[in-house]
Amino acid sequence: MQRDLVRRGRLSDDRTGEVMHFLSSMAADHEIADMDVLVDMAHLLMLSRQGIIDRAAAEALMRALLGFHRDGIPAEAYDERFEDIHAGKEAVLIGQVGEAFGGRLHMARSRNDEVATCIRMRLRDDLIALVEETCRLRGLLLDLAGEHTETIMPGFTHLQHAQPTTLAHHLLAYEAALGRDCGRLLGAYGRANECPLGAAAFASTGFAIDREMTAALLGFERPMGNSMDAVSTRDFALEALSACAVQMATVSRLCEEMVVWSTAFVRFVTLADGYSSTSSIMPQKKNPDTAEIMRAKAGTVAGSLVAALTITKGLPMSYNRDLQELTPHLWRGVEAAHQSLGVLRGMLATATFHPDRMAAESGCGFSTATELADVLVREYGLPFRTAHSIVGRAVKMGALDLTTLEAAAQEVAGLSLCGQGLTAERVAAALDPAFSVAERKAIGGPAPSETTRAIAERRRLLAGDEEAVAARKEAVATAIAGLILEAGRLTEHE
Amino acid sequence: MQRDLVRRGRLSDDRTGEVMHFLSSMAADHEIADMDVLVDMAHLLMLSRQGIIDRAAAEALMRALLGFHRDGIPAEAYDERFEDIHAGKEAVLIGQVGEAFGGRLHMARSRNDEVATCIRMRLRDDLIALVEETCRLRGLLLDLAGEHTETIMPGFTHLQHAQPTTLAHHLLAYEAALGRDCGRLLGAYGRANECPLGAAAFASTGFAIDREMTAALLGFERPMGNSMDAVSTRDFALEALSACAVQMATVSRLCEEMVVWSTAFVRFVTLADGYSSTSSIMPQKKNPDTAEIMRAKAGTVAGSLVAALTITKGLPMSYNRDLQELTPHLWRGVEAAHQSLGVLRGMLATATFHPDRMAAESGCGFSTATELADVLVREYGLPFRTAHSIVGRAVKMGALDLTTLEAAAQEVAGLSLCGQGLTAERVAAALDPAFSVAERKAIGGPAPSETTRAIAERRRLLAGDEEAVAARKEAVATAIAGLILEAGRLTEHE
Amino acid sequence: MQRDLVRRGRLSDDRTGEVMHFLSSMAADHEIADMDVLVDMAHLLMLSRQGIIDRAAAEALMRALLGFHRDGIPAEAYDERFEDIHAGKEAVLIGQVGEAFGGRLHMARSRNDEVATCIRMRLRDDLIALVEETCRLRGLLLDLAGEHTETIMPGFTHLQHAQPTTLAHHLLAYEAALGRDCGRLLGAYGRANECPLGAAAFASTGFAIDREMTAALLGFERPMGNSMDAVSTRDFALEALSACAVQMATVSRLCEEMVVWSTAFVRFVTLADGYSSTSSIMPQKKNPDTAEIMRAKAGTVAGSLVAALTITKGLPMSYNRDLQELTPHLWRGVEAAHQSLGVLRGMLATATFHPDRMAAESGCGFSTATELADVLVREYGLPFRTAHSIVGRAVKMGALDLTTLEAAAQEVAGLSLCGQGLTAERVAAALDPAFSVAERKAIGGPAPSETTRAIAERRRLLAGDEEAVAARKEAVATAIAGLILEAGRLTEHE
Amino acid sequence: MQRDLVRRGRLSDDRTGEVMHFLSSMAADHEIADMDVLVDMAHLLMLSRQGIIDRAAAEALMRALLGFHRDGIPAEAYDERFEDIHAGKEAVLIGQVGEAFGGRLHMARSRNDEVATCIRMRLRDDLIALVEETCRLRGLLLDLAGEHTETIMPGFTHLQHAQPTTLAHHLLAYEAALGRDCGRLLGAYGRANECPLGAAAFASTGFAIDREMTAALLGFERPMGNSMDAVSTRDFALEALSACAVQMATVSRLCEEMVVWSTAFVRFVTLADGYSSTSSIMPQKKNPDTAEIMRAKAGTVAGSLVAALTITKGLPMSYNRDLQELTPHLWRGVEAAHQSLGVLRGMLATATFHPDRMAAESGCGFSTATELADVLVREYGLPFRTAHSIVGRAVKMGALDLTTLEAAAQEVAGLSLCGQGLTAERVAAALDPAFSVAERKAIGGPAPSETTRAIAERRRLLAGDEEAVAARKEAVATAIAGLILEAGRLTEHE
Repeated sequence: MQRDLVRRGRLSDDRTGEVMHFLSSMAADHEIADMDVLVDMAHLLMLSRQGIIDRAAAEALMRALLGFHRDGIPAEAYDERFEDIHAGKEAVLIGQVGEAFGGRLHMARSRNDEVATCIRMRLRDDLIALVEETCRLRGLLLDLAGEHTETIMPGFTHLQHAQPTTLAHHLLAYEAALGRDCGRLLGAYGRANECPLGAAAFASTGFAIDREMTAALLGFERPMGNSMDAVSTRDFALEALSACAVQMATVSRLCEEMVVWSTAFVRFVTLADGYSSTSSIMPQKKNPDTAEIMRAKAGTVAGSLVAALTITKGLPMSYNRDLQELTPHLWRGVEAAHQSLGVLRGMLATATFHPDRMAAESGCGFSTATELADVLVREYGLPFRTAHSIVGRAVKMGALDLTTLEAAAQEVAGLSLCGQGLTAERVAAALDPAFSVAERKAIGGPAPSETTRAIAERRRLLAGDEEAVAARKEAVATAIAGLILEAGRLTEHE
Repeated sequence: MQRDLVRRGRLSDDRTGEVMHFLSSMAADHEIADMDVLVDMAHLLMLSRQGIIDRAAAEALMRALLGFHRDGIPAEAYDERFEDIHAGKEAVLIGQVGEAFGGRLHMARSRNDEVATCIRMRLRDDLIALVEETCRLRGLLLDLAGEHTETIMPGFTHLQHAQPTTLAHHLLAYEAALGRDCGRLLGAYGRANECPLGAAAFASTGFAIDREMTAALLGFERPMGNSMDAVSTRDFALEALSACAVQMATVSRLCEEMVVWSTAFVRFVTLADGYSSTSSIMPQKKNPDTAEIMRAKAGTVAGSLVAALTITKGLPMSYNRDLQELTPHLWRGVEAAHQSLGVLRGMLATATFHPDRMAAESGCGFSTATELADVLVREYGLPFRTAHSIVGRAVKMGALDLTTLEAAAQEVAGLSLCGQGLTAERVAAALDPAFSVAERKAIGGPAPSETTRAIAERRRLLAGDEEAVAARKEAVATAIAGLILEAGRLTEHE
Repeated sequence: MQRDLVRRGRLSDDRTGEVMHFLSSMAADHEIADMDVLVDMAHLLMLSRQGIIDRAAAEALMRALLGFHRDGIPAEAYDERFEDIHAGKEAVLIGQVGEAFGGRLHMARSRNDEVATCIRMRLRDDLIALVEETCRLRGLLLDLAGEHTETIMPGFTHLQHAQPTTLAHHLLAYEAALGRDCGRLLGAYGRANECPLGAAAFASTGFAIDREMTAALLGFERPMGNSMDAVSTRDFALEALSACAVQMATVSRLCEEMVVWSTAFVRFVTLADGYSSTSSIMPQKKNPDTAEIMRAKAGTVAGSLVAALTITKGLPMSYNRDLQELTPHLWRGVEAAHQSLGVLRGMLATATFHPDRMAAESGCGFSTATELADVLVREYGLPFRTAHSIVGRAVKMGALDLTTLEAAAQEVAGLSLCGQGLTAERVAAALDPAFSVAERKAIGGPAPSETTRAIAERRRLLAGDEEAVAARKEAVATAIAGLILEAGRLTEHE
Repeated sequence: MQRDLVRRGRLSDDRTGEVMHFLSSMAADHEIADMDVLVDMAHLLMLSRQGIIDRAAAEALMRALLGFHRDGIPAEAYDERFEDIHAGKEAVLIGQVGEAFGGRLHMARSRNDEVATCIRMRLRDDLIALVEETCRLRGLLLDLAGEHTETIMPGFTHLQHAQPTTLAHHLLAYEAALGRDCGRLLGAYGRANECPLGAAAFASTGFAIDREMTAALLGFERPMGNSMDAVSTRDFALEALSACAVQMATVSRLCEEMVVWSTAFVRFVTLADGYSSTSSIMPQKKNPDTAEIMRAKAGTVAGSLVAALTITKGLPMSYNRDLQELTPHLWRGVEAAHQSLGVLRGMLATATFHPDRMAAESGCGFSTATELADVLVREYGLPFRTAHSIVGRAVKMGALDLTTLEAAAQEVAGLSLCGQGLTAERVAAALDPAFSVAERKAIGGPAPSETTRAIAERRRLLAGDEEAVAARKEAVATAIAGLILEAGRLTEHE
């Protein structure tokens, strides 16, 4: 192994293996190693253009870096005796091109700004992927909703049958939440996409660097405006984890419903075998394991967020090594969300919904009682609270037929509904779930006409989010392609 | 006490006092009671314009509501035997105007949409206040930074003296983070400022309501687009708590620094007596208690967020009573952040910074060693890593003078610095903190010219945020003023 | 208001009302005020016996303290302009007996040890109450289990029908977990029940105090062994909150089941009206709101724990004001658990279980398939995995009758079950839920004989826990009664 | 790869690679694979003795299992296409000995009880290792304390100089907290060390198994008393994580102090190079990185706990796949604690404390003012609050000399101290830190005589904990050795 040149001057190297392992971020550095090579390239191009490094050293270094970009950083650089991939990579570079050249790359920067830049670049890609995955899931939900605007099902409050609604209406509730998740993730993206490079240890540098140039080469919106902030803040990571935690809370709700809906009691849905497991002992079992694991991932992401919040709490300026311990929580949380969204989409796309079971349940549990009370208000002029009490009493008596309603009206309010013209037919009509659903045409309601309108509107909003994320992805890709091109040019000309 | 009319039809009322207390949200409902009266007014105006309620009932109800708005809801409505303020207020209303009128207000809505609307209105105000308070704090930091662009101090990494910087540079790091907090809070505001009213229990209603009208009367951007989502999501609360938790993590860092800086060891700052406490036993003590409590508030807000995340995890659609338990955590978390920001501003505004102590420490701990290494690179052509190792070795040997550097250069790299022209004068100049700071002119660096530029830029950004929050505040105030006016008109005309 | 004498020497008093409110712990100090008077009494008795305070001062102070004990601390002491109840109470005392006497009570102690002692005393009572409440709930579960050893119901994994079990077996699972909760709570009690008094600010005191005496008077097991640890640790609070959080996770599971079981789909249980709510709009609704709020309380307690953990993280020795912010989270978390346990017991005690529905479901969903596979193993010699696959395939084919099993055996394993003597009668017998349950006689299994045995064993363990908590409660009560007696004696003699 | 025989009967296998990866617990199963082989052996011995499996099958299986025990489970078993190591191992076993034999091992059990048993066995070992490591650290702290009973240093409250104490006293505060951690960890051990095996899916089994036998073979205290509880609870994991989180909060405090103490301001300690890092850019830096990472690990463990708590919240009985997602958080949290304790011990053992710096600071900041006030009380009869105010005012005036004290006494209390005989010599004596420390002889105080006594007492308590953990470790080791022996015997006889 090459020596760890960062330590050689100041410190004796009597670290035990245990301490090396404890100090090392190598396990997590695999996540950012590719980004680090790009950061090196941009930094080197800038050093070269600013005349801070001479041409020979720049060319030699760039050739080596292009090799790393093409083939990956040599395995040797990941040895845990290096504190991190940055030290490891520098040692390998120096091994390849000599210290006279290789010892010049780390001018005008520090690992503090280097690692912050790498994390933001990697997170940037992750957030784009999360938004894309969320958009795909929203698209599926809108497709499913489009197929089920007439699929009447019971809606629930407190897990009790409440009022009839439609499967479309139910799925659109989740799509709306996921739309807000896109907003949160894009907000996090905007605040993550600023470039710390050039902040050096925290006080910037006396070399005549060009931070606009490196920021642009790496596809960032702008350089960060304060060099101490640049290396010491991880608020962008906390924000990304928060956005994931909020989204996963929503995902856990949908998964809970899939678990409940696939029970033998409910049978509103059958999940595909590919998303189910059986039991090692109970041969008949078909279990909604993917839904359960996604539900649990909400806990995993909440845990990542808490770890990150707790780690940053009370840290003085500027960089502290505590921040190294934060990074794996970021990757773990974001990955748990990303994985879950993909699996959730697959699970829903392959699930079989059972409109017959939904229809059969939609009239159960007196779930159209509200409509009946509303009819008493609208057509017979009762105050709502009176109508509500009469219908509630009739349910307590055990039935929602004319006789029971009449008795309840006498008991609760001392009045006669029959006397006011209520008929058994009118009662029956009011209790029909399809009637109840069709009446609910207000904005956001379950009436097929309204959900059809809503789906169209949501498709427009989704298209907007898709364009927004595509534009960001394109901007990064274009910048990185340009960077590689520039890097190649440096080695071609003399 | 008036009877709880919501329960009378369906349920016998054999709740024990313990259960009533357990079920009741009254303790937290004080936070939203005023909003609830506004919601009633808007709903009533809409019912009246849509012809859902007749004129006499509307007038009688509106007169009572205007009384509540003017004088507060009668204390009786807060009795814990009501499940919540909504039930209590309805009972009091019916007591005042009779069930024939009073029983009509709750048509076409449910407590589910009512409470969600109230929470969003209250949170809207809280978020505006938070952004305003954050802007005030940013303004103060920019003022202080403006006074201290030349105040040289040691910057720290790992709490070790690292490189000289300025107090302006240090304060600007916090201002930058607080600027991002404004962005997050405004993002949360945008997603909170949609109106759930009209969603009723979750399935909207068969009455011909006008949700655009109520949304506009209450100053919301728009009605929420899905009625099930409208009553069941609390993602806006999770987002607001997340934004507060992230902000408080930053606040806790600044407070940690004030604690450290006011120690007898450091003495960079003296907090005003008004922000300090003494000891009941140690008469000499002057303790930075406000800073410590703010630091701890970061834990309080993190706890609120975790409570809220855990509560929502795995809840099926649509409304579940669990959500009631979430709301107090929202108010507690937001209030902790709001209080802290105000106190922090006062603490900083009244603190006395000690530039002499900062200057005295800025050259300590070899904190200009980086600049010296950079000079070896820039002026004597050494590779950075070689220069870094030589200076590091000299520090290990105990001094940064020419003799030691020469010895270190021999040891580490087998070369002579004196031979290359390095002089004691050049070493001394490179080690001067003021020189080091003045050199760091890159974007975001501590050089006075750069921090002066940065302060001007940040003032522009701050002004933008101030305008953004003022516009939102004005829009809400205008809408509410209009609502009161319309409500008054309803009672004036016949 | 009396002046805040603690501050007068060292600090000018220019605190704003906002800062006073921010610094004050008054809101939470109501929780410990009564304890604080007892602490004063014990401290005063000790000062008197050790000759540190003279007789006249001791008598005057004790008379005032006995007044506070009898009538409560005067309201004036709770004014927020005092930092805390300790400062407020001292000021009121001095107002009553003069500074020459009143200024002597705080000798040889500090608010740091005083408040830590109060918190431990209050928590001690709370933990006892929690264990008592947990024991009551366990007793109820054992009673219910005793009534339902023969009540066959489906057991679930993944919320899917899995195997038949009994309601007794199901309830005993929760009783076992609650038994471990008692162990955890008693462990927390043991570590909380040590006395910090006499630690003063953290370095103890030069006065010749007797810490054994005050510890005994206040009913503590022993004085804490290190005075710095005594005032600065809150690990006992973290442990108590952890124990509550773990317990509430279990409670949330039981409540989730009550919510699911009371749906129209499942109908295994009907909760009493007194533990239910209805809807303000849907007159038919009867919702399991108490169960939902308890489920949510698990989030509240988790949030309290996180707040407390985050607050303590990274605090240097010894006392820091951050600890003040921790205390309300302790009370909130412990109270949420305590309330929930009482409500849960009431909810279960008044609930109606439906054995008929349980029986009807216990054979559904092929839930006796495991027993059938086991019969194939035991009586027909098949390897278990082969039997498991055959039965699984038959379920996939849609039926568990002889014909389908035979076809499945051919398909999966190429063998004939009929050829080995399997008959339709044997299949039917194996699929009988009662047979399946009766077979499961292993330790911990659902067979009525085994649950009957288990109930008896658990009653013995419960009795042991009840004795343990009663002994602790008695020890504290005896000590406090003795303290009051001694205090009275001090004022009686001349 | 062998087929996944668990799925073949019931489910088609159309899982995508993404889903396989998502469902698979393989990554974490490495942690328990060795335990799983032991569980198989114990189960097989029991099946054989109970006559549930015939001799030939038992011998063949045991031979294969002994091979796995000796050489590790073949790599093939870890293929992610198996859901978990249990399915993978069974497939490999069947591949080795044929389904007629290999298909019989999983009789009378399920993966649910199997995995719960493995987790408890592994956690058992982890908890023992944690207690051992904690005891070692306590031993070191007691050793260091023994060396420093006379090392006077300033004690701090609010990070302000407060009163003189000794390094021994300070270190003993941590040792006391770590002693309570041992109690918590042993409590967690006791509740973890019960055997779920034989609970099968949750309802136990109809086979005539002997749960006492398997529990004893695997070194458990007893079989768990309810089979549904056995597979579905993870409270033991929550408890272990809680204990670790509480301990790490304490560790983070000590590490914070090491960070502060090693600053250039304080210089109370120099950490060994082996526990430090330098900077990639600042050649002079020597940073306390190990202390910082340990401080951050407190956040990691808190995050693990929150993840686990959130995952279990609201899960119905009995087993749900969510529990699989919990397990990696358990290992991560426990490992973070274990690693940290070892590194912390190494860091402290190799650190150099600086008694000269401590002594120099111990009289600073008026830190003996309390003793002076106490002298005024003890020797001149002033009420404590009056003395406190006088000394506080003198500090505010800027000095603690006779002249200033006299002026302060006039101002605050209108009295003359000189008139009562106070002399400059008496003031000087009272302000001597060594005098102040020597006076504090109360139980738990810093006086050398008392810390010497305390160290001896703590050594006795430590020895008790060491014995307790050694006994548990021995019991497990003996049981496992016996199990291997029995397993070997089964294959030897015919």
